[in-house]
Amino acid sequence: MKKILENERIDDLEFKGLKIIQNKDGFCFGIDSILLSDFAKEIKKGSKVIDLGTGTGIIGILLCGKTELSKIIGVEIQKEVYDMAKRSIKLNNLENKFEIINENIKNLENIIETGTLDAVVTNPPYKKIGTGLTNENEKKLISRHEITANLEDFIKVSSKMLKDKGTLYMVHRPDRMVDIIELLRKYKLEPKRIKFVYPNANKDANLILLKAVKNANPFLKIEKPLYVYNQNGEYTDKILKIYGKK
Amino acid sequence: MKKILENERIDDLEFKGLKIIQNKDGFCFGIDSILLSDFAKEIKKGSKVIDLGTGTGIIGILLCGKTELSKIIGVEIQKEVYDMAKRSIKLNNLENKFEIINENIKNLENIIETGTLDAVVTNPPYKKIGTGLTNENEKKLISRHEITANLEDFIKVSSKMLKDKGTLYMVHRPDRMVDIIELLRKYKLEPKRIKFVYPNANKDANLILLKAVKNANPFLKIEKPLYVYNQNGEYTDKILKIYGKK
Repeated sequence: MKKILENERIDDLEFKGLKIIQNKDGFCFGIDSILLSDFAKEIKKGSKVIDLGTGTGIIGILLCGKTELSKIIGVEIQKEVYDMAKRSIKLNNLENKFEIINENIKNLENIIETGTLDAVVTNPPYKKIGTGLTNENEKKLISRHEITANLEDFIKVSSKMLKDKGTLYMVHRPDRMVDIIELLRKYKLEPKRIKFVYPNANKDANLILLKAVKNANPFLKIEKPLYVYNQNGEYTDKILKIYGKK
Repeated sequence: MKKILENERIDDLEFKGLKIIQNKDGFCFGIDSILLSDFAKEIKKGSKVIDLGTGTGIIGILLCGKTELSKIIGVEIQKEVYDMAKRSIKLNNLENKFEIINENIKNLENIIETGTLDAVVTNPPYKKIGTGLTNENEKKLISRHEITANLEDFIKVSSKMLKDKGTLYMVHRPDRMVDIIELLRKYKLEPKRIKFVYPNANKDANLILLKAVKNANPFLKIEKPLYVYNQNGEYTDKILKIYGKK
């Protein structure tokens, strides 16, 4: 297996020596994946975890560094992206912990026994079909738009995969929060922690980090806000800390 | 009609000369009502508004000062509290604008024609029956606990009263947000703006301010956070401004 292909590059994650392969023309990981890994770092020792729509593998690779999970399964529908994530796993010597499957998440229940996982992490496509720009290449389209699976599919599959009291960690856009909450309730996933991410202290939120627990009682915590930039346009201390630079 | 009774006091709202009568042993208005009046100050000129569970009348009195609404109806179930609010309205010479009804909100559709109002404002009781301390006097109990009407009643009645595209403004506790959102969707009130209030920058949110529009399309804005105290334990500039002190 070749390490990297033409049009790919290896990026250093600057955290415990972890690295990742990305396609320069494709969908590169963003701050949302980094923040989700940090938000989910409470995942307990020995947990079996699944990452729905794993993309480059960024979230799983970081969780292997930040937690003592025993196993993580990444699910990625795009063959090329799946191949690339597989090479990143090998590059980090994580083959024993991080398994990757090239499949549509909607078919998962034929492959993995339902009700067996401790945690789901997911950074699903944010946009409904027909919204936003669509003059992108197909790889970016599938990563950003709900083409092969929509929000309801991601939530439905999460609920099926999780054990009783298992935990879902998701990052998404705040403008979809009402849909997200309605669907979580529909599939017995009770929101327990929400953290909003704001570009700075004077802007509306542009990301939502959410933890939901299967079959839990209602009681939601809205955690203190997270700002990406300070008033001088520099990363905040909190963000630098999450990026491992402070 | 006597101006004030024994155990009552008149407080200056320090805004356009407005005043309010409060019962020293009863439920006094809090920062939540002040913040809701500020959040709802976008209510348009000439609007017909209703305040469900009006209490001392604080929200309606402030909205008469902050907006150019043409009419506001306050609904209060407790006779003593209703009487007190009525005297506050007279004290402010607002009898032509601010009408008050002594009724359970659940009976409103027999009194007011449905689908006729531009806006609803409400600071409903926050607590489910059986939660929190209950060794309080009855006046405080009804103001704080869902004894005579619950969250679903408040949302259902709001939806019935509002015109198509009419607006609901509500203040509540963040821990109930999932229930609130689910019920708003059930009654065709789409959340459009949410602002969280935090005691300070290091604490979880303790209030949610929410705007929902009847029969609107989904798209939610999570506005920049509002902090009550700064790091020195003093009111923030934003709060001082809302209180008219800056």
